Amino acid sequence: MENGYERIRNVDLQAKVVTAAEAASWIEDGMTLGLSGFTRAGDAKAVPVALAERAKQEKLKVNVYTGASLGSDVDKLFAETGLLRKRLPFQADPTMRKKINQGEFYFVDQHLSKTAEMVRGDVLAPIDFAILEAIAITEDQRIIPTTSIGNSMVFAQHAKAIIVEINLAQSQLLEGLHDLYEPGKQGERSPIGIAKPDDRIGIAGIPVDADKIKGIVFTHQSDSPSTITAPDQETETIARHLIGFLREEVRAGRLTNRLAPLQSGIGSVSNAVFHGLLQSEFTDLEVYSEVLQDAVFDLMDAGKVAFASCCSITLSPSKMDEVFPHLAKYRDRLVLRPQEISNHPEVIRRMGLIAINTALEFDIYGNVNSTHVLGTQMMNGIGGSGDFARNARISIFVTKSIAKNGDISSIVPFVSHVDHTEHDVDVVVTEQGYADLRGLAPRERAELIIRNCAHPMYRESLADYYKEALTRGGQTPHVLEKALSWHTQYAQTGSMRQAVPLSR
Amino acid sequence: MENGYERIRNVDLQAKVVTAAEAASWIEDGMTLGLSGFTRAGDAKAVPVALAERAKQEKLKVNVYTGASLGSDVDKLFAETGLLRKRLPFQADPTMRKKINQGEFYFVDQHLSKTAEMVRGDVLAPIDFAILEAIAITEDQRIIPTTSIGNSMVFAQHAKAIIVEINLAQSQLLEGLHDLYEPGKQGERSPIGIAKPDDRIGIAGIPVDADKIKGIVFTHQSDSPSTITAPDQETETIARHLIGFLREEVRAGRLTNRLAPLQSGIGSVSNAVFHGLLQSEFTDLEVYSEVLQDAVFDLMDAGKVAFASCCSITLSPSKMDEVFPHLAKYRDRLVLRPQEISNHPEVIRRMGLIAINTALEFDIYGNVNSTHVLGTQMMNGIGGSGDFARNARISIFVTKSIAKNGDISSIVPFVSHVDHTEHDVDVVVTEQGYADLRGLAPRERAELIIRNCAHPMYRESLADYYKEALTRGGQTPHVLEKALSWHTQYAQTGSMRQAVPLSR
Repeated sequence: MENGYERIRNVDLQAKVVTAAEAASWIEDGMTLGLSGFTRAGDAKAVPVALAERAKQEKLKVNVYTGASLGSDVDKLFAETGLLRKRLPFQADPTMRKKINQGEFYFVDQHLSKTAEMVRGDVLAPIDFAILEAIAITEDQRIIPTTSIGNSMVFAQHAKAIIVEINLAQSQLLEGLHDLYEPGKQGERSPIGIAKPDDRIGIAGIPVDADKIKGIVFTHQSDSPSTITAPDQETETIARHLIGFLREEVRAGRLTNRLAPLQSGIGSVSNAVFHGLLQSEFTDLEVYSEVLQDAVFDLMDAGKVAFASCCSITLSPSKMDEVFPHLAKYRDRLVLRPQEISNHPEVIRRMGLIAINTALEFDIYGNVNSTHVLGTQMMNGIGGSGDFARNARISIFVTKSIAKNGDISSIVPFVSHVDHTEHDVDVVVTEQGYADLRGLAPRERAELIIRNCAHPMYRESLADYYKEALTRGGQTPHVLEKALSWHTQYAQTGSMRQAVPLSR
Repeated sequence: MENGYERIRNVDLQAKVVTAAEAASWIEDGMTLGLSGFTRAGDAKAVPVALAERAKQEKLKVNVYTGASLGSDVDKLFAETGLLRKRLPFQADPTMRKKINQGEFYFVDQHLSKTAEMVRGDVLAPIDFAILEAIAITEDQRIIPTTSIGNSMVFAQHAKAIIVEINLAQSQLLEGLHDLYEPGKQGERSPIGIAKPDDRIGIAGIPVDADKIKGIVFTHQSDSPSTITAPDQETETIARHLIGFLREEVRAGRLTNRLAPLQSGIGSVSNAVFHGLLQSEFTDLEVYSEVLQDAVFDLMDAGKVAFASCCSITLSPSKMDEVFPHLAKYRDRLVLRPQEISNHPEVIRRMGLIAINTALEFDIYGNVNSTHVLGTQMMNGIGGSGDFARNARISIFVTKSIAKNGDISSIVPFVSHVDHTEHDVDVVVTEQGYADLRGLAPRERAELIIRNCAHPMYRESLADYYKEALTRGGQTPHVLEKALSWHTQYAQTGSMRQAVPLSR
């Protein structure tokens, strides 16, 4: 039975094994940490928890940079213990969300491809410790990541010191699936040589200076499973409309049945769309995305997806059991990349992805709010949606047309916060239908969105707003004093439902 | 003396010379035209005017795609004669602006790097005629553009037929300055091999099938001169603050005195910034931008700018006289590219440009409105600002802190239209000072922007708004029912000036 030491193949480093508590004791008030982890996968699990324990008893504030959201309740613990001064670039934890919105610490919401540039460019507070989950450390002290890469490479290279968590619960079959590529400084770099999802351009581990590895901690703990819910009738209908749109693209000769490399944001709707592809005529598909959820493996098993590139693998418990012990069968069809590469504008534009992301709300002109409830309360963060939406061949946003039993319309006169402007939104889809906005002016967009995507209980009210806005004129007509009235009414009454005009 | 025929070096094509009126007569109601021209430079000047003449007398509606804004009053004539059904991707004419805002035709405001992708991807109505200004047509029927390239290459390749306007007033010394590169279809393309502003990757003319050239028209008319105003005290102060910021970057070791390749939007403020560089310690600079204005040539003459890449050269009358007859001296320091290459995310991100663009207004969190007055009335269009701001090393937005003698504050609680989200805005500069927003959370941004950038006559009112917003909480605090109140007050009273609260 393995005791873990065989995973430290550079034997000189075996002397650096410590407990999580000891490693956590090195972290000082005011420091900045760079943590592995992307959407609950591949996060450092022991040292952060030990650090949160310390924060319960002593004054300790740190900045925490990650790939994206963490699992293992680390973000929850960080938020509860008051450990944080600043957190970036993404989170998805209910407790952390609450503390962010209470202003207890600073949250910097970033395009996920951009954090690495800012670390490399010395724009952010410098990283004292990188804390990185690994499967193993090689003879030449390369750190082999686990189920995500996130920002681990740039953190390791720029941190003053590194703590490695070797997680014995992570499958050693992951080794070789990573493609670690460092683009170099802006102004000194060459093109990123990825022209197809299966192009490999890097190396299998993160090269580091052995002296920078200050400690190694053993853990034995699975990733937190994904929290997606199964497709329901509405998400299935959304998926059907979206697939209908893709079918029209094939019919018009703009795509073939192989489509184009697919990106999908995390979440139930996206998962439902990928499920929908299972029964479709589309075949020999490729995925170039951030996170692989359950459905992508179903599609690979069904022979529908030929190759998938990602930055993270986040699965349900049952899918973890199916996939991780049998990674060998996916070996030639799978690659994990750093998030600045999985989300890189250069690569996304070159390949011309079909990008599918989720909106919280969108307005009658196609501007999308992905992050802020009522314009103020952070939900999760913009994540990679901007990287993909801006540079995709077709940028699609999906959402249910109503929420809270109809008290919220996801289609509003004017979004309360803009994450994606009309320029970056090609198609919007709800369970009511889709609106193909490409090449349309705002006035054309409004009519199509109201007709095709709004819920019947709000369609007439939106048309009334638009009709009144037209009397004011403009490229993008609005009744400015009423533009946010649906949101303020919801805040006051708990419903966006509009009174029927007296004139009817 | 030349009669023009010697510029048609493929002698078979000389038989295709026609009058502008005849060429215009080929255009039918409902057609789509792709016109050369980018910010008043290199536009087709005769056939569009002849077409507008026809539109005065007969029912004629067409779609017009261009590079960017046109000179020679073409956009004015198009708007006045009711010729247009749809116009994209940019304009800057007062008459056209008025008609757009009256809803007389559709205006599709696009990222300037994106139009070519949409033409290539068959997403827009197909182009019947490309009408392109040229210096000459080569023996192998390559069309040599004039003072801009814009979208001419993609229009020529995808149009059913081409009309060439050979402009005898354009300097033949322009030949050889163009670098025409066709990236190919998304999904089938290789990296764009530009790693430095002076890398040349293309050919000197637009290759076309001789049969597609339906007519050739001679013209003899200079480009419309640029309309920029000279630096005033405020734009000079803005320039001084911006240069102060760059100096801090050098001091911090993030830049050297060579800075990084510079992009600057068109306009007086940008021109003032470039003027400011003349007296600075920065040297051996490079420019990778859309439009070269007067100041860049001054910087080249002063030995400050070593190389400039652009898509268009738009000069004042006196600068035209200085530059165009003496292009030979700039030959090794100048290149013109198609706008999808001058504005390509891949190249901008790789080189890490310093991007300087103009805001109409920005809000206390750093969201920028570049296009819509009071959220509804189109000014010009987003142009290339989004291409650059999103992908730059440092994305800077400049504006005067007030307009209309102080009745408008350019810093508002909530922008009335979003073109650039907080994620894409690194530094904002007014004549009051600059705010470096990199790595800052919204609450940090608000304090810095109000303190450093707002005009004193609005500073306290903005602070009051922010203070009240903080009582509501959230990642991005707002008083939603007052968020657009400055704009609605301006619409009603002609001023954004806020009453002093009773509590003082």
